[in-house]
Amino acid sequence: MKLVYFDHNATTPVHPEIKNAMLPFLGEAFGNPSSSHQPARGARMAVEKARGQVAALINAEPDEIVFTSGGTEGDNHAIKGVLFNFLRHGHQWHGHQWRGGQWRGGHAITTAVEHPAVLESFMFMKKFFGFETTCLPVDGSGMPDPDDLKKAIRADTVLVSIMTANNETGNIFPVREMARTAHEHGILFHTDAVQMTGKLPIDVKDLGVDLLTASGHKFNAPKGAGFQFIRKGTAAEALFSGGHQERGFRAGTENVPGIAALGMACELARTGMKEKMEHIRPLRDRLEEGILGSVSETVLNGHGKNRVYNTCNISFRYIEAEALLQMLDMRGICVSTGSACSSETAEPSHVLQAMGLSPVCSRGAVRFSLGLGNTAEEVDYCLYVLPPLVRRLQEMSPLFPAK
Amino acid sequence: MKLVYFDHNATTPVHPEIKNAMLPFLGEAFGNPSSSHQPARGARMAVEKARGQVAALINAEPDEIVFTSGGTEGDNHAIKGVLFNFLRHGHQWHGHQWRGGQWRGGHAITTAVEHPAVLESFMFMKKFFGFETTCLPVDGSGMPDPDDLKKAIRADTVLVSIMTANNETGNIFPVREMARTAHEHGILFHTDAVQMTGKLPIDVKDLGVDLLTASGHKFNAPKGAGFQFIRKGTAAEALFSGGHQERGFRAGTENVPGIAALGMACELARTGMKEKMEHIRPLRDRLEEGILGSVSETVLNGHGKNRVYNTCNISFRYIEAEALLQMLDMRGICVSTGSACSSETAEPSHVLQAMGLSPVCSRGAVRFSLGLGNTAEEVDYCLYVLPPLVRRLQEMSPLFPAK
Repeated sequence: MKLVYFDHNATTPVHPEIKNAMLPFLGEAFGNPSSSHQPARGARMAVEKARGQVAALINAEPDEIVFTSGGTEGDNHAIKGVLFNFLRHGHQWHGHQWRGGQWRGGHAITTAVEHPAVLESFMFMKKFFGFETTCLPVDGSGMPDPDDLKKAIRADTVLVSIMTANNETGNIFPVREMARTAHEHGILFHTDAVQMTGKLPIDVKDLGVDLLTASGHKFNAPKGAGFQFIRKGTAAEALFSGGHQERGFRAGTENVPGIAALGMACELARTGMKEKMEHIRPLRDRLEEGILGSVSETVLNGHGKNRVYNTCNISFRYIEAEALLQMLDMRGICVSTGSACSSETAEPSHVLQAMGLSPVCSRGAVRFSLGLGNTAEEVDYCLYVLPPLVRRLQEMSPLFPAK
Repeated sequence: MKLVYFDHNATTPVHPEIKNAMLPFLGEAFGNPSSSHQPARGARMAVEKARGQVAALINAEPDEIVFTSGGTEGDNHAIKGVLFNFLRHGHQWHGHQWRGGQWRGGHAITTAVEHPAVLESFMFMKKFFGFETTCLPVDGSGMPDPDDLKKAIRADTVLVSIMTANNETGNIFPVREMARTAHEHGILFHTDAVQMTGKLPIDVKDLGVDLLTASGHKFNAPKGAGFQFIRKGTAAEALFSGGHQERGFRAGTENVPGIAALGMACELARTGMKEKMEHIRPLRDRLEEGILGSVSETVLNGHGKNRVYNTCNISFRYIEAEALLQMLDMRGICVSTGSACSSETAEPSHVLQAMGLSPVCSRGAVRFSLGLGNTAEEVDYCLYVLPPLVRRLQEMSPLFPAK
């Protein structure tokens, strides 16, 4: 049975060219970049080549890129790294010594719909240091209001962390505007760009963020490799103490094969972004319109327009999404409920809850996220298979208003 | 020019079978283990298979294994994880509530010759929490004295972290005995086993350690994958906050290809350990005896007997090791001075300094670390090339007592 994979926001297949870029480093070129001999030099050059490829994707300088093991490490490093540094040195921003010496509380701002790696990192700082965090609400379409950020800023706010695009709805957040607001108050700004990177253009100079986190396996690189942009002059305590790798931001032997692959993924994303968008958007729209047009009791979750072109989140009222997911899986169609990170818990998605969805809607929410390999035939297959399955499940519900 | 690679303590080539074990997960089997559909199930099974392979290597239970990105992450997680947990809950050991509630200082013990990932993790705890650490000295052969551990234990000691084998000398430390001492005082014990794992048998039940850290790329797995043993019932705060992966010890999408490779590396190490030892030990001995017998003004650094069979650290008096390293590199022979992690700094090795080596000895120290692919011909080539190079460098020194 052919696999119809509509779960690219969870993870993506490794592109053959990207796999090929890593193979030399699983073979002859196995050196440790920190050693001082020929195989080490090859490894070091590969890491620096990749750093350039990553920087080019987001219009950063190569020495503003730090390689990580993925998005969760990046989010943890951005948040804990900045706040630990603040603990120790106070917050310095544009030459303005905001607060020095001793730790006396502190405050951060994020949104209620961030990835658990962000929310839990702030929880960690609360637990150990009483560091407070305000979670901005989102409206019914899943968007935060930039005015809410202005209202939430306090005298002791040190960091704002707001995602570039949401993993469940695909909503694109007004990060540029919110980063400007933060900077007007001398506050550092981090964005979790895991769901945006490689899909849509990112220009860190234009966005104005101080830190940005990305993960390779969300755009066709292998798992285990990600990167973080840290604007020159931004201080952050390392999450990994130890050696001097990555300019002190991240100790440990570099994952050279993963980094080489990540570099190639950035290169392919940069040069093929328009093509990718033009391939995926019509497929997503065809799927979305097809479902909304043929299945009754459906609601599109998320913003109609400001949304990444590959994501579509639909609530099928009066069904359990989990049941539909399993029926689709048996027919070779892979979709998800909520995010992959929380799918093992039975709790409803915190994103959809924050959007104020009724239980009947949030329990029936399914995420379709498309990618490079998808085809119109796959979309049509899904549109053929899905509606009768939904109808069957809906008719099993005593609440379903049968026609 | 054929490469003669004698730097296996820095990193190792990826074994072809291990590379093959990861390839499916760079192809068809790309799922996210946390998702709920067919490709996810394949990925999840691969991770659990690897967990079993890792557990079998060290006689642990599969659910005592946590996958990491490598040794530095592991050391950081073991130390910061245990101490952060202590901060919050006090130290509970064998049902004995050692200290509860509020953070009031605290103390740990390690050795002066640990890896920077260990030493700097303790520095981090000092910097942020005033947490004190005693570094046990080593004798001239690089060995710590178990009696020193007994003397260093204080009423507020929470954790002892002592490496299984040293990366620079290969010395094998009396971890079993020292773990027993720690436990007699209700203190947790971590061992950095990065240089031991895959080379010599490890039985965590027999050793009695509570946490053990290993890195795949030191025994023919790719970089970017390591593991940590955490004995059942041992509490540690996660270094990565976020999702529920790895039983809450380590959030983030699993590096499935790296983990599959690591599992295979453990399998091969377990089944081929005797053979590996019987291949490498005679080569190391031949190299060591050859150098010590043919080059004047040499000293073997490390313990004569209690040493990993692949490592040989020799001081060539009156030369700069860095110069010899470069001359050997030009002839295709890869060795190292100090560890790869500190080779970019010009400072002398903290390990050799702790052993009390004179400057003339520590500046001329070279580490040869052999591995599976090495041959007798390579050893003989090195024994042919090296002595005249050393002699030439020695004769350039005004201090050299020429015959």
